[in-house]
Amino acid sequence: MPIAITDPDDPRIEPYRAVRERDLVGRQHRFIAEGEVVLRVLLKQPRFEIESLLLAENRLDGLSDALEDLPPDVPVYTANRQVMDAIVGFPIHRGILAVARRAPLLPLEEFLTALPEDALVVGLVGLANHDNVGGIFRNAAAFGAQGVLLDHESCDPLYRKAIRVSVGGALVVPFTRAPSAEAMVQALQAASFEIIALSPAGSEILSRVKPARRTALLLGAEGPGLPRELLARSRTVSIPMSGGFDSLNVATTSGIALHHLTSQKDEKPLPR
Amino acid sequence: MPIAITDPDDPRIEPYRAVRERDLVGRQHRFIAEGEVVLRVLLKQPRFEIESLLLAENRLDGLSDALEDLPPDVPVYTANRQVMDAIVGFPIHRGILAVARRAPLLPLEEFLTALPEDALVVGLVGLANHDNVGGIFRNAAAFGAQGVLLDHESCDPLYRKAIRVSVGGALVVPFTRAPSAEAMVQALQAASFEIIALSPAGSEILSRVKPARRTALLLGAEGPGLPRELLARSRTVSIPMSGGFDSLNVATTSGIALHHLTSQKDEKPLPR
Repeated sequence: MPIAITDPDDPRIEPYRAVRERDLVGRQHRFIAEGEVVLRVLLKQPRFEIESLLLAENRLDGLSDALEDLPPDVPVYTANRQVMDAIVGFPIHRGILAVARRAPLLPLEEFLTALPEDALVVGLVGLANHDNVGGIFRNAAAFGAQGVLLDHESCDPLYRKAIRVSVGGALVVPFTRAPSAEAMVQALQAASFEIIALSPAGSEILSRVKPARRTALLLGAEGPGLPRELLARSRTVSIPMSGGFDSLNVATTSGIALHHLTSQKDEKPLPR
Repeated sequence: MPIAITDPDDPRIEPYRAVRERDLVGRQHRFIAEGEVVLRVLLKQPRFEIESLLLAENRLDGLSDALEDLPPDVPVYTANRQVMDAIVGFPIHRGILAVARRAPLLPLEEFLTALPEDALVVGLVGLANHDNVGGIFRNAAAFGAQGVLLDHESCDPLYRKAIRVSVGGALVVPFTRAPSAEAMVQALQAASFEIIALSPAGSEILSRVKPARRTALLLGAEGPGLPRELLARSRTVSIPMSGGFDSLNVATTSGIALHHLTSQKDEKPLPR
């Protein structure tokens, strides 16, 4: 049974208070999921424990089928728009919020060992923009990548906006942190991943690359790109572009590369 | 010589006043370009006549090389941050604005006739989101598409935000309007373009498509997709995705398809 909240200061909805201010501080053990599409993805992910929902009254009916997947002990709070906006601190048009617990991050080596023999992962180096990280997770989920690795400079995929831009992909694709880009590359190589580093200066052309059974796609931020030391230790690949306009968004780049690598895998499976 | 503006009400900088409000109304004969990257692209495009620039004082030095391309009769206004923000109506962090005249749009048939025998164009149907249209122009420029066609429901590529997201690509790739999606398809077929319509229900897989000499890539909005009547008259193509997460951003989709089509063209040129 939904619990109606009429007082914005009700202590039960404390985790939903001043959402933007808390986004800035960061949430260590929890994250906020926002909107219907993301909530529906979240409800299908057993690795995240949902603590509660806060819904605008008029959103309840449209979600009744999805809420059947919710464990019965999870409180569902409802509020009218005015109360909900007052709790959250801004007009929350989507009218759907959830608070869930983060899953613990596996140590890098353990994460890689647990992956199948045939695996495609994405490694992110210095990606501090939530839109880009969200977009990359969306593509990683769409093309069925088995995991994403983030270096210490890359931002949190469970930041509210990153989850939203990922359309829930950040909740679908398992990820973990590497203490540094260097450590990421070392661990990948130790786990028999071939590293494909995308760079405008890459020595091969993406459309001719045939991926290995275990492939890691390494992406750097749009301006600086990947550090030279990492490129020296990887198979470097470029996407040829039209003269004078050498500029792709990094999330788009991830989509292009993941499409090529997965379509090659499907066409010519390597012998086991 | 730059002209210093000290009064936000100076009539000479009238076109820069209340930028956001005017964005909403739309500019019929002009557009606003914003930021250094976009300005540098604009300065290289002979088809747009620049009427004036408005620069934050501290941006002038960094642009001196680019401003050599500016015709000497174009006024360059400068202002300090406070005055510039007051003119524009919000804190304009980039500190770089230009007002330029739109190039006249060619009639659809004329636009297509003028294209080379070997041509790749993008057709947009119902794309009302400036981020998506900007992202598509960025990709069209990156992969050297010869043109973009927009139906009557698609938004203005010269809207300030669309230009910014396109990183100037909206100023690079020529475009024109079709009175309707139906008219677009008819004109493309009359001009011997093979139409590749992307759709989750497409009957071919993108990675196996070999493009014709004249190819048009047709894209619809993320939710509704392309109308059934158009799909019936096109070669329909899908991008296979991982089970349960059938979701790509339409700008990313354009990048994936343009990459595939241009890499195929480069690899196996069709006989002339």
